[in-house]
Amino acid sequence: MTKVKEWPFGITPDNYPEFMGRSSEHTTRKGKDMAGYFQGTPEPEKVIYEVYEAETTGHICMALTILKPGKVGKEYHMTKGHYHEDQEAGEIYVCLKGKGIIIMQTKDGLNGEIELEPGAVASIPPKWAHRTVNVGKKDFVMLAIYPATSGHDYGSIEKSGFLKRVIEEKGKPRIF
Amino acid sequence: MTKVKEWPFGITPDNYPEFMGRSSEHTTRKGKDMAGYFQGTPEPEKVIYEVYEAETTGHICMALTILKPGKVGKEYHMTKGHYHEDQEAGEIYVCLKGKGIIIMQTKDGLNGEIELEPGAVASIPPKWAHRTVNVGKKDFVMLAIYPATSGHDYGSIEKSGFLKRVIEEKGKPRIF
Repeated sequence: MTKVKEWPFGITPDNYPEFMGRSSEHTTRKGKDMAGYFQGTPEPEKVIYEVYEAETTGHICMALTILKPGKVGKEYHMTKGHYHEDQEAGEIYVCLKGKGIIIMQTKDGLNGEIELEPGAVASIPPKWAHRTVNVGKKDFVMLAIYPATSGHDYGSIEKSGFLKRVIEEKGKPRIF
Repeated sequence: MTKVKEWPFGITPDNYPEFMGRSSEHTTRKGKDMAGYFQGTPEPEKVIYEVYEAETTGHICMALTILKPGKVGKEYHMTKGHYHEDQEAGEIYVCLKGKGIIIMQTKDGLNGEIELEPGAVASIPPKWAHRTVNVGKKDFVMLAIYPATSGHDYGSIEKSGFLKRVIEEKGKPRIF
């Protein structure tokens, strides 16, 4: 991972594409990369989300996620979601654009969610898996801030999934 | 420093006082605590700003700063500002309310600033001192996110000050 330019910079709901230019890790998740995550089967070439990652300091990383609007069947577009490998690492999300829900859970079976609109911040404690769901009609754009030691454990989610899903019912998102 | 409740939570421009209830470190800076920082002399008992600090994970701290509107002479209310003791620790600011400017500099004489309005994020790299200035007419409220290792070096600023000041000129903030 390359460091962002060592100069202070601001990120606003309008200029965030500039951040992408400072990041070096770019991941695109298409439907075919997310087989088994949704109840239905996503179109293989449809882009579900993109992540731009950058190390901002020796200790903290930042990632910009752009989660495209849409559904697979009645299920809203979402990220894969992950636990952290480092059990002491939490994560902080800042919503820049759009309307989303963070779905969270622990391995002990606790679960919860936080709604995110522009200007809102979510604090996810260590040991809580987290997944982002776009329940709006436009791109959901957020900035994730996490310790450089975090690491990603996608395997646990790939095996057992999340306890809850966000499904459209009568035109509105509902958590089941 | 006591940890915030180990449960996910959201912080919005409206509910941020809830965060204060989760923090244990509360600092109030009055005029008398900031003698020598402004060009003029602040009223001793006037509150300039308040900070509510909390450790959110083993690695990251969060602090909520409420910087009151107002001026000392023509100079806008500001925080003391600091370098980090840990040379690898940067900081990330999220503006929840109001209108502010982050003034920054390095010991090599570089300087810069970032304007902050609600929903905007500022990334301050390691080795850059940072001070927040309220240039609006209401409270400036922001969330700071920083590595637990950061530490605060206020001494360097107390001795040598910042290279730039934010002064009202013809009713508008100007950086000198």
